[in-house]
Amino acid sequence: MQRRRPSSETLSGESGDVYFARADEILAKEGLDPLVTMEVFSRGSGVLCGVDEAKILLSHALVDCSPEEAIVEALSDGDEFATKEIVLRIRARYRAFGLYETAILGMLAQSTGWATAAREIVEAAAPTPVISFGARHVHPDITDTLDYAAIVGGCVGASTPAGARLAGLNPTGTMPHSLVLIFGDTVRAAEAFDRVLSPDVPRVVLVDTFRDEAEEALRVAHALGDRLYGIRLDTPAERGRVTPDLVHEVRARLDQAGFGHVRIIVSGGLDPERIRHFLESDAAVDSFAVGSHISGARPIDFTGDLKEIDGRAIAKRGRIPGPTESPRLQPVDLSAWRAS
Amino acid sequence: MQRRRPSSETLSGESGDVYFARADEILAKEGLDPLVTMEVFSRGSGVLCGVDEAKILLSHALVDCSPEEAIVEALSDGDEFATKEIVLRIRARYRAFGLYETAILGMLAQSTGWATAAREIVEAAAPTPVISFGARHVHPDITDTLDYAAIVGGCVGASTPAGARLAGLNPTGTMPHSLVLIFGDTVRAAEAFDRVLSPDVPRVVLVDTFRDEAEEALRVAHALGDRLYGIRLDTPAERGRVTPDLVHEVRARLDQAGFGHVRIIVSGGLDPERIRHFLESDAAVDSFAVGSHISGARPIDFTGDLKEIDGRAIAKRGRIPGPTESPRLQPVDLSAWRAS
Amino acid sequence: MQRRRPSSETLSGESGDVYFARADEILAKEGLDPLVTMEVFSRGSGVLCGVDEAKILLSHALVDCSPEEAIVEALSDGDEFATKEIVLRIRARYRAFGLYETAILGMLAQSTGWATAAREIVEAAAPTPVISFGARHVHPDITDTLDYAAIVGGCVGASTPAGARLAGLNPTGTMPHSLVLIFGDTVRAAEAFDRVLSPDVPRVVLVDTFRDEAEEALRVAHALGDRLYGIRLDTPAERGRVTPDLVHEVRARLDQAGFGHVRIIVSGGLDPERIRHFLESDAAVDSFAVGSHISGARPIDFTGDLKEIDGRAIAKRGRIPGPTESPRLQPVDLSAWRAS
Amino acid sequence: MQRRRPSSETLSGESGDVYFARADEILAKEGLDPLVTMEVFSRGSGVLCGVDEAKILLSHALVDCSPEEAIVEALSDGDEFATKEIVLRIRARYRAFGLYETAILGMLAQSTGWATAAREIVEAAAPTPVISFGARHVHPDITDTLDYAAIVGGCVGASTPAGARLAGLNPTGTMPHSLVLIFGDTVRAAEAFDRVLSPDVPRVVLVDTFRDEAEEALRVAHALGDRLYGIRLDTPAERGRVTPDLVHEVRARLDQAGFGHVRIIVSGGLDPERIRHFLESDAAVDSFAVGSHISGARPIDFTGDLKEIDGRAIAKRGRIPGPTESPRLQPVDLSAWRAS
Amino acid sequence: MQRRRPSSETLSGESGDVYFARADEILAKEGLDPLVTMEVFSRGSGVLCGVDEAKILLSHALVDCSPEEAIVEALSDGDEFATKEIVLRIRARYRAFGLYETAILGMLAQSTGWATAAREIVEAAAPTPVISFGARHVHPDITDTLDYAAIVGGCVGASTPAGARLAGLNPTGTMPHSLVLIFGDTVRAAEAFDRVLSPDVPRVVLVDTFRDEAEEALRVAHALGDRLYGIRLDTPAERGRVTPDLVHEVRARLDQAGFGHVRIIVSGGLDPERIRHFLESDAAVDSFAVGSHISGARPIDFTGDLKEIDGRAIAKRGRIPGPTESPRLQPVDLSAWRAS
Amino acid sequence: MQRRRPSSETLSGESGDVYFARADEILAKEGLDPLVTMEVFSRGSGVLCGVDEAKILLSHALVDCSPEEAIVEALSDGDEFATKEIVLRIRARYRAFGLYETAILGMLAQSTGWATAAREIVEAAAPTPVISFGARHVHPDITDTLDYAAIVGGCVGASTPAGARLAGLNPTGTMPHSLVLIFGDTVRAAEAFDRVLSPDVPRVVLVDTFRDEAEEALRVAHALGDRLYGIRLDTPAERGRVTPDLVHEVRARLDQAGFGHVRIIVSGGLDPERIRHFLESDAAVDSFAVGSHISGARPIDFTGDLKEIDGRAIAKRGRIPGPTESPRLQPVDLSAWRAS
Repeated sequence: MQRRRPSSETLSGESGDVYFARADEILAKEGLDPLVTMEVFSRGSGVLCGVDEAKILLSHALVDCSPEEAIVEALSDGDEFATKEIVLRIRARYRAFGLYETAILGMLAQSTGWATAAREIVEAAAPTPVISFGARHVHPDITDTLDYAAIVGGCVGASTPAGARLAGLNPTGTMPHSLVLIFGDTVRAAEAFDRVLSPDVPRVVLVDTFRDEAEEALRVAHALGDRLYGIRLDTPAERGRVTPDLVHEVRARLDQAGFGHVRIIVSGGLDPERIRHFLESDAAVDSFAVGSHISGARPIDFTGDLKEIDGRAIAKRGRIPGPTESPRLQPVDLSAWRAS
Repeated sequence: MQRRRPSSETLSGESGDVYFARADEILAKEGLDPLVTMEVFSRGSGVLCGVDEAKILLSHALVDCSPEEAIVEALSDGDEFATKEIVLRIRARYRAFGLYETAILGMLAQSTGWATAAREIVEAAAPTPVISFGARHVHPDITDTLDYAAIVGGCVGASTPAGARLAGLNPTGTMPHSLVLIFGDTVRAAEAFDRVLSPDVPRVVLVDTFRDEAEEALRVAHALGDRLYGIRLDTPAERGRVTPDLVHEVRARLDQAGFGHVRIIVSGGLDPERIRHFLESDAAVDSFAVGSHISGARPIDFTGDLKEIDGRAIAKRGRIPGPTESPRLQPVDLSAWRAS
Repeated sequence: MQRRRPSSETLSGESGDVYFARADEILAKEGLDPLVTMEVFSRGSGVLCGVDEAKILLSHALVDCSPEEAIVEALSDGDEFATKEIVLRIRARYRAFGLYETAILGMLAQSTGWATAAREIVEAAAPTPVISFGARHVHPDITDTLDYAAIVGGCVGASTPAGARLAGLNPTGTMPHSLVLIFGDTVRAAEAFDRVLSPDVPRVVLVDTFRDEAEEALRVAHALGDRLYGIRLDTPAERGRVTPDLVHEVRARLDQAGFGHVRIIVSGGLDPERIRHFLESDAAVDSFAVGSHISGARPIDFTGDLKEIDGRAIAKRGRIPGPTESPRLQPVDLSAWRAS
Repeated sequence: MQRRRPSSETLSGESGDVYFARADEILAKEGLDPLVTMEVFSRGSGVLCGVDEAKILLSHALVDCSPEEAIVEALSDGDEFATKEIVLRIRARYRAFGLYETAILGMLAQSTGWATAAREIVEAAAPTPVISFGARHVHPDITDTLDYAAIVGGCVGASTPAGARLAGLNPTGTMPHSLVLIFGDTVRAAEAFDRVLSPDVPRVVLVDTFRDEAEEALRVAHALGDRLYGIRLDTPAERGRVTPDLVHEVRARLDQAGFGHVRIIVSGGLDPERIRHFLESDAAVDSFAVGSHISGARPIDFTGDLKEIDGRAIAKRGRIPGPTESPRLQPVDLSAWRAS
Repeated sequence: MQRRRPSSETLSGESGDVYFARADEILAKEGLDPLVTMEVFSRGSGVLCGVDEAKILLSHALVDCSPEEAIVEALSDGDEFATKEIVLRIRARYRAFGLYETAILGMLAQSTGWATAAREIVEAAAPTPVISFGARHVHPDITDTLDYAAIVGGCVGASTPAGARLAGLNPTGTMPHSLVLIFGDTVRAAEAFDRVLSPDVPRVVLVDTFRDEAEEALRVAHALGDRLYGIRLDTPAERGRVTPDLVHEVRARLDQAGFGHVRIIVSGGLDPERIRHFLESDAAVDSFAVGSHISGARPIDFTGDLKEIDGRAIAKRGRIPGPTESPRLQPVDLSAWRAS
Repeated sequence: MQRRRPSSETLSGESGDVYFARADEILAKEGLDPLVTMEVFSRGSGVLCGVDEAKILLSHALVDCSPEEAIVEALSDGDEFATKEIVLRIRARYRAFGLYETAILGMLAQSTGWATAAREIVEAAAPTPVISFGARHVHPDITDTLDYAAIVGGCVGASTPAGARLAGLNPTGTMPHSLVLIFGDTVRAAEAFDRVLSPDVPRVVLVDTFRDEAEEALRVAHALGDRLYGIRLDTPAERGRVTPDLVHEVRARLDQAGFGHVRIIVSGGLDPERIRHFLESDAAVDSFAVGSHISGARPIDFTGDLKEIDGRAIAKRGRIPGPTESPRLQPVDLSAWRAS
């Protein structure tokens, strides 16, 4: 993950549950700051994500601690984890990081939910590649985080420049319906796209704006010829969404007309069940663009537990005192994670 | 909603789908910038939220347009909306705002999902008040947005300072399990809390850390006496979560010991069904603290459609050309929404 | 019902269960031919149909009997009947009609199944009219019987000349896809239709053969103008079938272009649930054309029981001896039903 | 299949959808009669039946065409076919056969529905043979078609002389309840049956008319001795229908009395599930007589598509232009199918 | 309830959980015997039964206590009780009754389960009376308790002399199948029954042993004439059990033959659902004889809690300390319940 | 099974259906007492129990018969039996045992129901042992029979002295909640238990009365040290019952404190599904104490049929005449079963 400095609201604790700030005030006044061990785990399982961002946050939080009082061990973004497995362990003075419990758990919960859903859909679609198209369902301040998590989960690309950059890729996209509507004709919009954009942007044209998709796909193919990289089928729900039959027919009509090189990208309300239906029907889809199944995934809840205080094993009722044996955890070099 | 300047990533379009940036490039090169009408609606229904944040964004985007070419009409945060009802209509040069379609839809989708889920749970709990405790499930950059949406949906409070401030309230909280663990005893932690914090912070004590809740509640009540505002029951899943029977018993034991003034706050995995179960069982809950049912709510998808271009009714296939009759829309005074 | 002479196979008994022919042979050899009462009923309920055809058959079978030994009482086509209600009672010498038990029960079972299904769908669609389009699912020798039963069940028209004639109506239809394909363009096919056919045939044009329905509907409306009576939406399953949204959009686009007079006929896989969905969505359908829900309806089984033999009450095990009180039965004037 | 001349209503087109007659009129007036290729397929799968009757119809329709303009290829009655497999292809002038599309599809739909249901039940019952007893549920004009289809599907016999003849067999039957009621006693009816009928009619006696089946079976066995071929159990629904236990008991009582040669035929509301229940219970059934599961089977819908017009590949939207590769189709020698 | 001395095993505590005997030994050795209040309640609800037998047991257990240290309050057999309602409260020295906790709870659990099931079926059958016929499903040492509970639940009679006596009634019965088999004919068995038994035993004859029930019912009616009180239909499962249709037919055939006075008793696998089916079908059943639905009813679990010890409110975790307000409880006069 | 004389009510027939007494009276008066064969079977299957008690009863009933007229064959307690398998066959004069049909069937039905349920739960728990704790749900007169049946079904112990004795074992138990409440503290109650009871009673202490189980378990372990055999977890439903997580935690905390020898016994609402959940979660349960799943098991219905009378095969309708081949039956030596 590309390093970014945590936001000022995160660092101030303003974005966290207020009772952590209050606990900090109490401990300060009472002169308490024990050396504690906190362990983070989930009752669910999935593909871990957000833990690298948490490492960045901790690298800032613990910057002034001595190395022996700032020991962080963790798994990494992209690792699969099991129910109740420890994914992050922090050994430090409590007041050095206690304020960030909400932030750390939130980074993990939301990104892990997205990465796990992405993995689910990538596995359903394999070997057909999947692109993340869910930016429109989440707040713009976290579309980059969403797209990064989708790529951690296995997507080969994402639609936002910010998200793609976070994962070290270029963004992926076609054209909006608005562009076609403004040009008033799909072929004219496609020709302008072809005229204007840099040659390294693949020519992928939306073909459902004005006419039947099969008819329009042929018109566009005749207009752009070999320069046409692919067409995107995004039939609206009012017209029954994209079906395997439609893909069969468009593929057949393109092939009959000599456009075997034109790829077919499918989007619109895709989930694992629908994707499996395309694959079982042998529909010739070249890639799937998936939105809400990933972006609408429920966060996967994480919990942070104190298991040791000043060397003494402890736990709240319902948990087992003392550190949990966790051989998969790796030591984290905090200085390497600190963003400038 | 408190005014905030949109983030630089939002304003640059980096957080949006890349094809909007490409469309902008094409239109610029082709010299096209028609006056268009875009309408935004959802296939779902619920409690609208995020539209006021969108107004702030538009107030920045359209800052240089003449008033007659920057007409925005909209509903407001907290309004209920029906399936396919228009919630926002923008009439302006396309290039003045086309780049922000992803951001606007994302603000609406996620906040409306949260506000609608909050409304659902608030209605299940009525007249018992509900507090938003979901910050730990979402990325710290949007916990304020989450808590604001929860309050728009009807919650009476929220746990993050940033979110509460956005809604013009003070944050609400008790104490973390960590504090109790560090003090090694619930009563000692409660006494420190009581000693240190400002008198206007209500004394609400967690009672499930070390001992049985009924036993601990009585110990705390004896220790703090009249100064104890309430206790929070948050029994872990390993101990069967909070049940109506537990509330009955704790209430009865507190009352028998003369602590009728101590309120009972319940948290832990609450959803409308469990809340209805508490109400049907006449369990004497004074407030519910709800996390993942709100914070894990699925975004409610919104769509933006061009319906008019340079005065001509138009629409993509599957939609009806021309503006939709929408008498509930109110004109938006953009200058009033611009954040300094 | 229009009178028709029963087929020779029916009159010979060849189309009936062979054991009736054998019973006839045995009784003849043994010199037995008692005066019996047979009652016909069903375990189901529904809209009776086929009983008028049974009256015609009995009018031929009993032609040589004395009036006092040929007493037939019955309900009529279109009557609703209850579970176990007697719908037909025959009092005659057994050998005069015993051979026709299979034929009578078969006429009742199949026609009643169709009429009952038609009634179900007509009630779901009310007040929108329904036309029977199911001829393609049944053998050509009974399409007339099917369409007659559909009209008895409440359909306002049917697609076969033979069936419509049986019910005293004109057949209803539009044009086959083949015609559009042969002309190579929907508008050209519509113009030829308009040129050639008698002015009393309503101009109803299929609009889904080549292009998107909304686009094609407008082209046809512009071509035929006021002479266009309606368009038929019959979107294939591969394109998601007709949806309420499609009807909304086509209606809106026709109205916006000034073709408010053009009716919309919907067909394709309709059943009561889908029809209710159209009505609940306020889709402006002017009539529904229904096929397999009616033509594929399961026959409703009827049973014929001897209840009296030479004046003695009798019954097989499981039934109650003697005639059943049946005040709704009407005497049948056999001579009036005899076809020339 | 035995050859029969199509009915005059079929040949006139009166039993078909009226729009085929209208299309014919239009094409005639417009002077169009292209050489076309029509393909027939189903979205379902099953046991094909009715296609031989369609060959007879086409042999009459295309009688005046030159051999190179009347090329028919098809599967045969009894062939299994897959979803969307082509079962019939006609290459001829459109006007030579267009009028018969409804008739051809209807022959296929209804007979294939019956044959497929018969196959299903024959497979459930194997190796116990199944007889078709469903004539009483369908119109007498098609009982022969029903019984022929049942035999194509695997039944070893059928109850109507007309149907059995169509399949080249003798009809199968026992005796009606009416005969037993008229004789007033099962044994007396059985003795008359035995006295009168030709020795080559197997003596199968119904034993549920007056008394308990087990008691009556023994009485009949004692009366007819070695001449008794079998008994039929047809217990009415009011008495709980035939159960495996009843078959066990009747078999045991017959065997104990030395009538091991008497076969047991079971009928009454049989479907695959109930038949499997008999087989799993090891009930000694010698044959099953099945009615409504076969006769009430839903037609299996077929579709006819033009795929080529005057040598040019074509198709309506949703289908793939040009003939489908169909190696299983066999050329049809029309002159051999023409009935005199 | 008729008073009976508790069995010696009950009084010795041998039939109770051994830990009560051990607790008694410990308390004796430790010199502890506080004055306690025990309350008995259930998590279920229903018709209370067994509490009168518990009063008898307590009248023996507390015989030597002073009246002020032996205060028992309770509801009575036949009372309906709600979830968690107190049905029995004992205030006495613990060692005077602690040993009998198992016995008291067992009496309540099993009898209340039976009475509640009986009430359920009596309500389903109302106004048709129900007789308890379940003795064959429970151990002979408790058939009297079963039949008493069934009568408390609303049955009008029961089949065992011991059970009927406990409830103050005469037993009810017909004749066993064995008797009919030994006589070899239902009519001969019925005649012997009629000849031998006292005239005050109603003549109710089983009619399904050898022949069809309808036939046999008429034979018996002709044989006994006016002396026949009723017939019992008990068709075995192998013959489909008794159905409403069978009752209709037997009633009709009896009435047609002038035996309108003969009652019809139905038995065999009856539960509330099947009984409702008879009533909804207007089957003329005069009484139902019900076995396993009552005798197989699950015990309804009761719990005994100490709520006060030597005047101090107390309770185990999960319960509320101190006596529960229970205005429906009535003081029990123990001396009146003591059996001689 | 330990021999016990049948109760006087059983021997007098008072506890049986009255119609057997009446049949006896009729046969006596009519001078009939044939030599009959009765067979007993069930429509269910399971683990047979109660048949040894039936042998004792028959040993008393047939005491005066000649050996050749008192032939009993049977399976034994603990044998598995199949649907409709004969488990007991009696060949004797009918009047010698006919009166006991109700008692014999009742012994079999109830004990077999319990033993079969016990087997089901023992198999779910294997290899963890199961103890029967259901005495509190059944009448004290049959707790011995219940516990005997549970042990026949595979339980290793039972809680009542009477039941354990019947199976030749010692009873098993811990301490009641009442004892803890009277001592006012779990540790004090445990110490008294330890002080008073014989050393061969294992020290098993209930730990859920006053405090959280984990806390209390440690306190008790510290108090009794090596003398502590085990603790019983019996968390009430109001506190969520015992969960695998609780067992994990208590085990871990005991082990951490050096009390690895202390066993964990789990009780409270256990059924096979919950037990499987403990095993699948690897919860370290040392034994399960099971109550209502066994004690509330539905009786398994048995039927007695006369199959031969004076050497003649016979049967009621629905059954097959004559003795059934039953090679597993063993001759019963009645004199050996007679109790003194």
